[in-house]
Amino acid sequence: MSNDAPNPIRPTDTEARSLARGLITQARFAALGVTDPDTGGPMVTRIAFGTAPDGQPLTLISDLSHHTRALKADPAASLLLGEPGPRGDPLTHPRVTLQARARFLRHGEAGYDELAAHYLRDHPKAKLYIGFADFSFVLFDVQGAYLNGGFGRAFVLTPQDMGF
Amino acid sequence: MSNDAPNPIRPTDTEARSLARGLITQARFAALGVTDPDTGGPMVTRIAFGTAPDGQPLTLISDLSHHTRALKADPAASLLLGEPGPRGDPLTHPRVTLQARARFLRHGEAGYDELAAHYLRDHPKAKLYIGFADFSFVLFDVQGAYLNGGFGRAFVLTPQDMGF
Repeated sequence: MSNDAPNPIRPTDTEARSLARGLITQARFAALGVTDPDTGGPMVTRIAFGTAPDGQPLTLISDLSHHTRALKADPAASLLLGEPGPRGDPLTHPRVTLQARARFLRHGEAGYDELAAHYLRDHPKAKLYIGFADFSFVLFDVQGAYLNGGFGRAFVLTPQDMGF
Repeated sequence: MSNDAPNPIRPTDTEARSLARGLITQARFAALGVTDPDTGGPMVTRIAFGTAPDGQPLTLISDLSHHTRALKADPAASLLLGEPGPRGDPLTHPRVTLQARARFLRHGEAGYDELAAHYLRDHPKAKLYIGFADFSFVLFDVQGAYLNGGFGRAFVLTPQDMGF
């Protein structure tokens, strides 16, 4: 990028904060980015997505998945939320990238049962596998975010901007 | 993962190869994973997606974007393709993760004009910005892929499996 390139990041405003919060609240799945322990490079997969009662982002994943092994080796994670609808230009559809660190919460640990009951209210189909020993919750401690509200509408957000 | 964990990867078959090729052909956008040069961790963003006349995956991106800066610093990339529809369980919807290396093709370079004409046939809205000096094509040299055809239906694919 040349030194005289325009800065594409806009000042954060109330509308940007509200848009990011809405994308997080409404998401039911996400694109998860991890560091692949086999290559040291990035790897993106689809995961289920939800929030804890206090709004913290989370997922429910299996030890058999490559992304789970990756997060155990390196908790640095990136989550893309906000899916385009069937019509319209996907690049004008709002989306947010959360930069976070993953923290596992396993069967039998403090708070697990309460979180499982909460999660199943939003994700009833997960009752088919939530009891399997290889499934755990992963809570994402959000460190920051990039919001793209459509072509040319980019913002950098803090955890506080999103209510974390 | 314990040593006696079941292997979740199925043997690659004709149906898996066909499914992966279809996901690549049909995708109009993707979740791109890169290594963030500021943190060394993963970062996922949405990009436009298309293919060259020979089927090679590609995108058209701006130098002003953080992911472009990342790919210039480290060409290792991951692309998640295959979007769930508005109904149904997103985790049963087929998707493929391409592991690739990014190669830039800029205005004025050999093959650029032919590729631009091809791209605009599939992405007519890109005519609004394809001529901007900060936009370039990025071709993805695919090294392998993970196909998830729905819950428990995972495959590891080679470039040859996908016709590359």
